[in-house]
Amino acid sequence: MAHKRSDVLAHAVALLDAHGLAALTMRRLGAELEVQPSAIYHHFASKQALLAAVADEILARGARPRTASEWPGQLREICSELRDAMLACTDGADVVATVWAFGLGAAAPVADLEKVLTDADAPDELVAVASRTLVHYVFGHAFEEQTARQAVSLGAVERSLDSLPDFDLGLDLVIDGLRARLG
Amino acid sequence: MAHKRSDVLAHAVALLDAHGLAALTMRRLGAELEVQPSAIYHHFASKQALLAAVADEILARGARPRTASEWPGQLREICSELRDAMLACTDGADVVATVWAFGLGAAAPVADLEKVLTDADAPDELVAVASRTLVHYVFGHAFEEQTARQAVSLGAVERSLDSLPDFDLGLDLVIDGLRARLG
Repeated sequence: MAHKRSDVLAHAVALLDAHGLAALTMRRLGAELEVQPSAIYHHFASKQALLAAVADEILARGARPRTASEWPGQLREICSELRDAMLACTDGADVVATVWAFGLGAAAPVADLEKVLTDADAPDELVAVASRTLVHYVFGHAFEEQTARQAVSLGAVERSLDSLPDFDLGLDLVIDGLRARLG
Repeated sequence: MAHKRSDVLAHAVALLDAHGLAALTMRRLGAELEVQPSAIYHHFASKQALLAAVADEILARGARPRTASEWPGQLREICSELRDAMLACTDGADVVATVWAFGLGAAAPVADLEKVLTDADAPDELVAVASRTLVHYVFGHAFEEQTARQAVSLGAVERSLDSLPDFDLGLDLVIDGLRARLG
């Protein structure tokens, strides 16, 4: 049975969300779609290519209207949207951060941050460093939150989740650093 | 053959460094030490407990003398030490960030950051948020750098590594945010 690329991708995201990153293999995806792995490779040349498409799909599903008019609010919108998109899918933070580190996808948030900072007349070096710093913060926070919530939910560990809702406070600290430089 | 806990732990770190996190299982550790898995469980009650000990060992091996006298330099020393310790072992960033998210270990860096900020008379809420923000930034940056370098080194992906040496620049941006609040 033939499947369109979009069907295979949607099934890959569903498999990830239901069973986590370790379960997302070309073999299992083929088995669930009742096709040979070669049919998966027809659409995605490698496991990395599949992961990259999954990461971009996770981000696309989390897209929201952006309404802020000033750069601090615009940065907050991009970072919060990225965080919420990753948290909405099991192991989403791990997948998106890994694909971005591979340089294979998930490039939109950094590009969006860079555009906001460029439009705010930040110098080029600051645009690059600040965009990466914000994304590193978002990835670090989302990875902790998702890992902690998933492990506690599975009964694998016991820890308090009380400190987790401080995402916006930490984000504002980084933005304050930027404000000190942009005046 | 009986093994001391410290021997088992040292072998676990060596296994992680040689073959990565996916290879670090109780079964494989037992096989390499020529003991039943139960002998491993005698020292480490669970895979999580083993991972926690491995994370703390990675941090202990990266410990360096700290010489800075002012809080910004003290924060930089702690964050750089954490980053270098994680980068020194294959998948070290993943292991340390995961164990910290589990609440099972790797707690020293945050405790050290909190002490520096408390001694600098930061208000309690800022102490907590800023310590966590710094650690999230360090984890996010180190995870990208390690994932990228390992994947490029294995020939798994091609990407430029030119942007990676910006760790100190991003760290200074977060510290500037703190400076704006601490005066």
